[in-house]
Amino acid sequence: MVETRTLTLDEIEDLSFRALVAAGTSDENARPLAVATAATEADGVASHGMAYIPIYCEHVQCGKVDGQARPKLWNPRPGVLTVDARTGFAHPAIDLGFDTLIPTAYEQGIAALAIKNSYNCGVLGYHTYRLAQEGLVGLGFTNAPASIAPSGGAKPVVGTNPFSLAVPGPDGEPAILIDQSASTIAKSEVMKHAREGKPIPEGWALDPDGAPTTDPEVGLKGSMAPSGGYKGVGVAILTEVMAAALSGATLGIDASPFAGTAGGPPKTGQFFIAIDPDASSGGDFAARISGLTAAIQAQEGAHLPGDGRGAKRRQAREAGVAVNVATLERIEAILG
Amino acid sequence: MVETRTLTLDEIEDLSFRALVAAGTSDENARPLAVATAATEADGVASHGMAYIPIYCEHVQCGKVDGQARPKLWNPRPGVLTVDARTGFAHPAIDLGFDTLIPTAYEQGIAALAIKNSYNCGVLGYHTYRLAQEGLVGLGFTNAPASIAPSGGAKPVVGTNPFSLAVPGPDGEPAILIDQSASTIAKSEVMKHAREGKPIPEGWALDPDGAPTTDPEVGLKGSMAPSGGYKGVGVAILTEVMAAALSGATLGIDASPFAGTAGGPPKTGQFFIAIDPDASSGGDFAARISGLTAAIQAQEGAHLPGDGRGAKRRQAREAGVAVNVATLERIEAILG
Repeated sequence: MVETRTLTLDEIEDLSFRALVAAGTSDENARPLAVATAATEADGVASHGMAYIPIYCEHVQCGKVDGQARPKLWNPRPGVLTVDARTGFAHPAIDLGFDTLIPTAYEQGIAALAIKNSYNCGVLGYHTYRLAQEGLVGLGFTNAPASIAPSGGAKPVVGTNPFSLAVPGPDGEPAILIDQSASTIAKSEVMKHAREGKPIPEGWALDPDGAPTTDPEVGLKGSMAPSGGYKGVGVAILTEVMAAALSGATLGIDASPFAGTAGGPPKTGQFFIAIDPDASSGGDFAARISGLTAAIQAQEGAHLPGDGRGAKRRQAREAGVAVNVATLERIEAILG
Repeated sequence: MVETRTLTLDEIEDLSFRALVAAGTSDENARPLAVATAATEADGVASHGMAYIPIYCEHVQCGKVDGQARPKLWNPRPGVLTVDARTGFAHPAIDLGFDTLIPTAYEQGIAALAIKNSYNCGVLGYHTYRLAQEGLVGLGFTNAPASIAPSGGAKPVVGTNPFSLAVPGPDGEPAILIDQSASTIAKSEVMKHAREGKPIPEGWALDPDGAPTTDPEVGLKGSMAPSGGYKGVGVAILTEVMAAALSGATLGIDASPFAGTAGGPPKTGQFFIAIDPDASSGGDFAARISGLTAAIQAQEGAHLPGDGRGAKRRQAREAGVAVNVATLERIEAILG
């Protein structure tokens, strides 16, 4: 049984903010990361919530991320924005980009934001969610250090590289929120099994020769299994092309690890596309989305991508979130 | 052993063109379809090549597609184009859209093309390929009649809905060409097994209650298995949102079948995004892509998405393509 303490979302944000600042992050950089941490806890994605605050603080202190960085925005074409995160946190770089991306998407009908010299952006769907809240279809990509091998090969060339799609709904909440990695399972699950000395199910990871393994240590030396075989590799390559190649960010094969303190900044990238759905659909978009979601919700037991997070979010706003006490103690130690 | 005859690509295009015109297709609509048919045969995708010409002809004759349609283009926003295919073939609608999409993508940095009231567009990667030939990153989506069930449900709500990514390469050919459906296997394979009375492997299709089946007839009454489980459903929903909802096209749940003569025009949609890679990457795009492809090609046995089609294409230009004689006889019968 894990000991927990229930905090309000404001308390989570405040604690996260103060820890990040205590570790050497500027106020402007700490705020968006603290807001995202509270939202991630509200969505029930505890693995990417407060548990990451001590890691972020350690990375500021060791120089893996520059807590004082000031991201810089360009607008090279009418529909394209770029942000150089300057080896700072992804969140303030994305915030800076979104401030211009949102009005640009409405003017142009479609607009893109490419971010380079960036860092782990946490839960990708948190960012596309905000585009949907603004009434835009948000498509997002972020690359990660290589852990998936190409079809026919055994050596990792692309990360577990998620994509996310957020579709605006009638009440300010997304009607659909897809946020999925290209691997069968998150790498953090394999790492957890390794720490606990437990075998992993077949199909999660491959050994250094590309053969299935149930030993998490062997899997971590080999590669993560792509979801659906070569089609998962295809999704990972799609994300690598968007988030790294189109952004001029560092490829997964060249990026330093997100975990640990070694290797300096990963300098990976993010890429977002925002689309005004009324521009191309002639106003039919909302009716199509409600037709699709109704067909899914009409089936007993069926669920839409994002339903689970949405339900947790509504509950967390009322009742707060139960946070692991061990995590809180690590954060309180940073605050001294 | 299937009897074949070797034709040059010009012969394939000419024969396809004449058959389509003989069936009642206008010259302007038949040409892009005939060009695509030759390219598809060159790529080795025989299932979507000349084998489709008799079906297209039958669909013109029964009114499932309007062979005389004149697609209409709008430009509702600086970065967004829409085409109403007016229940005609997808290919001339896409051609009309691409003529404006390509210069618009270079001007704006990113541009989108949404097509509604459309039809089966054949091999999706044929269309994105042409964007890559123009130096653009091409991302494409097309929806199809519903055949994949939602997670937790059993009744189909989305089609096998492919997406395609084409990445420009140094020599006018794509460096990477991804073209993959959201299902484990193409529905045509299940139909082929049903015709031949052969069982299908477990994992291809599900029965009407959502349970695995090896009976192709039962699978066709149930649903197609999504690739990688819920992540395949996610990819299918992504494509449905882009190709149907953003285009104002018909959802897969409401679309008439692509096969057979019943139900009138399917009125499904396509959605393409074209991106000038130099706009956002600061000129680093080509180096990133060659870094990624080199890391894959350096591994013995590993291959890039699109490698197989590319090799066949180069061979077909030299040596032509062996075409099924039974298909040729059906086409010659149309020509009378």
